[in-house]
Amino acid sequence: GVSQILEDIHPADIAELYEELNIDEAKYIYFLLDDDRAADVIIELDENDRLKFLKALPSDVIAHRFIDKMDSDDAADVISEFDSERQQEVLSHIEDVNVAGDIVDLLNYDEDSAGGLMAKELIKVKENWSIPTCLRSMRRQAEEIDEVYYVYVVDNNGVLKGTLSLKKMLLSSADKHVRDIYYPDVISVGVDASSEEVSNIMNKYDLVALPVVDQVGRLVGRITIDDVMDVMREEAEKDYALASGITGDVEASDSVWLLTRARVPWLFIGLIGGLFGSRVVGSFEGVLDIYPQLAFFMPLIAAMGGNVGIQSSAIVVQSIAAGTTGLDSPLRRLIKEFSVAFLNATVLSVLAFGYNYFLGSPDALTLTVSGAMFSVIIFASVFGALVPLLLDKVKIDPAVATGPFVTTINDIIGMGIYLTIGTFFYGWLT
Amino acid sequence: GVSQILEDIHPADIAELYEELNIDEAKYIYFLLDDDRAADVIIELDENDRLKFLKALPSDVIAHRFIDKMDSDDAADVISEFDSERQQEVLSHIEDVNVAGDIVDLLNYDEDSAGGLMAKELIKVKENWSIPTCLRSMRRQAEEIDEVYYVYVVDNNGVLKGTLSLKKMLLSSADKHVRDIYYPDVISVGVDASSEEVSNIMNKYDLVALPVVDQVGRLVGRITIDDVMDVMREEAEKDYALASGITGDVEASDSVWLLTRARVPWLFIGLIGGLFGSRVVGSFEGVLDIYPQLAFFMPLIAAMGGNVGIQSSAIVVQSIAAGTTGLDSPLRRLIKEFSVAFLNATVLSVLAFGYNYFLGSPDALTLTVSGAMFSVIIFASVFGALVPLLLDKVKIDPAVATGPFVTTINDIIGMGIYLTIGTFFYGWLT
Ligand SMILES: [Mg+2]
Ligand SMILES: [Mg+2]
Ligand SMILES: [Mg+2]
Ligand SMILES: [Mg+2]
Ligand SMILES: [Mg+2]
Ligand SMILES: [Mg+2]
Ligand SMILES: [Mg+2]
Ligand SMILES: [Mg+2]
Ligand SMILES: [Mg+2]
Ligand SMILES: [Mg+2]
Ligand SMILES: [Mg+2]
Ligand SMILES: [Mg+2]
Ligand SMILES: [Mg+2]
Repeated sequence: GVSQILEDIHPADIAELYEELNIDEAKYIYFLLDDDRAADVIIELDENDRLKFLKALPSDVIAHRFIDKMDSDDAADVISEFDSERQQEVLSHIEDVNVAGDIVDLLNYDEDSAGGLMAKELIKVKENWSIPTCLRSMRRQAEEIDEVYYVYVVDNNGVLKGTLSLKKMLLSSADKHVRDIYYPDVISVGVDASSEEVSNIMNKYDLVALPVVDQVGRLVGRITIDDVMDVMREEAEKDYALASGITGDVEASDSVWLLTRARVPWLFIGLIGGLFGSRVVGSFEGVLDIYPQLAFFMPLIAAMGGNVGIQSSAIVVQSIAAGTTGLDSPLRRLIKEFSVAFLNATVLSVLAFGYNYFLGSPDALTLTVSGAMFSVIIFASVFGALVPLLLDKVKIDPAVATGPFVTTINDIIGMGIYLTIGTFFYGWLT
Repeated sequence: GVSQILEDIHPADIAELYEELNIDEAKYIYFLLDDDRAADVIIELDENDRLKFLKALPSDVIAHRFIDKMDSDDAADVISEFDSERQQEVLSHIEDVNVAGDIVDLLNYDEDSAGGLMAKELIKVKENWSIPTCLRSMRRQAEEIDEVYYVYVVDNNGVLKGTLSLKKMLLSSADKHVRDIYYPDVISVGVDASSEEVSNIMNKYDLVALPVVDQVGRLVGRITIDDVMDVMREEAEKDYALASGITGDVEASDSVWLLTRARVPWLFIGLIGGLFGSRVVGSFEGVLDIYPQLAFFMPLIAAMGGNVGIQSSAIVVQSIAAGTTGLDSPLRRLIKEFSVAFLNATVLSVLAFGYNYFLGSPDALTLTVSGAMFSVIIFASVFGALVPLLLDKVKIDPAVATGPFVTTINDIIGMGIYLTIGTFFYGWLT
């Protein structure tokens, strides 16, 4: 029957299937699963689907059928989605006070920090243990953990000292102690490290698990690579969406309504900016009235400002995220951005000059287009780099600086620069 | 001394340090490292730095000091960067024909495929082996591998059958065979699978290693999570750069020259497009001459087309990359994009209408702006979705469709639509 078929399907695939079902079908399928698999499916569900599904269930069922079967990191993530009253209720139904305590500890951390990513499940041994004691304890601890990866060594205060190699331990004589054979160079991270730091470290050092320590160096948890991959992917998708002017994590398969809701707010910003820009252009009605050719190059200047601004904000945003900002101070960075802009601006305005010159455009127009292009490229470059640097300084995600926001402001200021220069050259040369 | 200090630094950190050194300093530091660490540093270097450094070394040194110490995947990656003559030379200095053979095998695969990501190092046992035979062979194989993760089971033809749990094996009696106790549900991937498929599978099923099989199901290699993380990161950075109009993987810390070179080509496309756009606008000189107010809203219409186009191409590109395109056919997808566009277009053109109406703009202008905004949003949406779908169909990376390319074309066509509608309404109403 159905339950036979479900047994052969991976929980991640069942979770994908779930998104196609209505709530009654979901419940029917759900009660055919055994508890361990049911918990795995719940973890894999989308936040919204999970909340919808769990809402209808009593707190004790949630505690016993799900939370109890999960690793502490997943349990804390699921519980954190409830309001505080429901959280209390579910926690009160967890029998083992250690399990509940671990979850309560984890709920304190920001979800985008090392503390928010870590699980309490790990294997640790004390440096002053003898090898036989160590082996006994490890066997007991290993029963409760899916993937071991590393064995951590701590001192009597729980401070992380290093890692233990299984091979070396099995080859050591029984009268040795952990302190004689452990490997002391362990890479760890503080509870408050950002999820970006965590993923940069694990990626750089090719780690599948990373120990987390508190402010005084005590080992408090372990982050595994699968969760970090999820974070990396979500971060990349979010940054990409922001750069493209989309809010939230929508996909092409989402509903028309969801897709529209993710896009309209940014378009609205573009509309407000554009209407404001039309007033800026309108304030130059006098010169446009006499020299309508000025209008021909307005889209070019706007496009240049937009393209250049996106480039420089994107480079800054990516470098902040990847931690590759180098040793440059913000001031040096802006000077560099200015140099790049200067080169770009020179090349492009010379090309535009050549185009107008060979086409026999009026001198005033030729000078206006190249002069404005030069100024707009310099302005848009520096502005595009400045905004994410400032946002990062005040602890706002610099990625929100990319996309329609920078483009819209560049459009308005670009039009102002272009028509001001145009007014000057046309006044002078005609 | 220096060599003492270097011993305490992780190869990935030494590689980072290398990028700050000139070639002589790099060589000096380099010869202080022992062979294993030297090979690790070489792998972590940037492709360009690595080539520069290895160019000066004789082929036999490269073979013995580096290639021999590397895992097959890294060895193949490093050798693939040489020209074919140098490849031959280096390969001829590798004594062990099995090692050289593995590298030659791996050189055949596209670097963005499962074959290009996999290493030959893995532990495999035959299903008809007895438990003691299996244990002996595993110990021998484990000596040559850094991280075991999984033990794979194959039949006599080398076809992948499943995985073996160490725990279960240790608890089995000696008269059992591998076939009695192995776990047959193993997730694998074909050599030709794309690196995106590989990373989607490992991410979805939370795997730290993924076996690779050939066209008839024989186990030929193993992909580890650290390499997949590198691919994910590079892919995300590349897509982000393309969407922002930047070529190559530049960072804010790169030189002014590199940064300029990564940006100028896209700006050049924007320039050509913008100059072409100026001719399109110029062909409406007549109507602009009489009604210069039409020019006021040109930047708004261009910006709307640009923003909408980027949104829809970004959603399609991300969905193709994430494999979440759902079950929709391309035609259904375009109909959906059209529906979203229709909603967006209605909301925004009504708002623009209200703005001009309450401001007391001439009727012709009010109708032109809203009519053009509606048409441009619809066109740019469908066009922005269509281009990446078509590129994907002809096996070009759809990500190149995003950024300045789509925006520039939308700008030109947007101006054409706007001024055509303007000519019509002004001709009719004035
Ligand atoms: Mg989510
Ligand atoms: Mg968490
Ligand atoms: Mg790495
Ligand atoms: Mg690596
Ligand atoms: Mg976890
Ligand atoms: Mg970010
Ligand atoms: Mg590279
Ligand atoms: Mg390769
Ligand atoms: Mg996962
Ligand atoms: Mg997971
Ligand atoms: Mg590798
Ligand atoms: Mg891609
Ligand atoms: Mg634009």
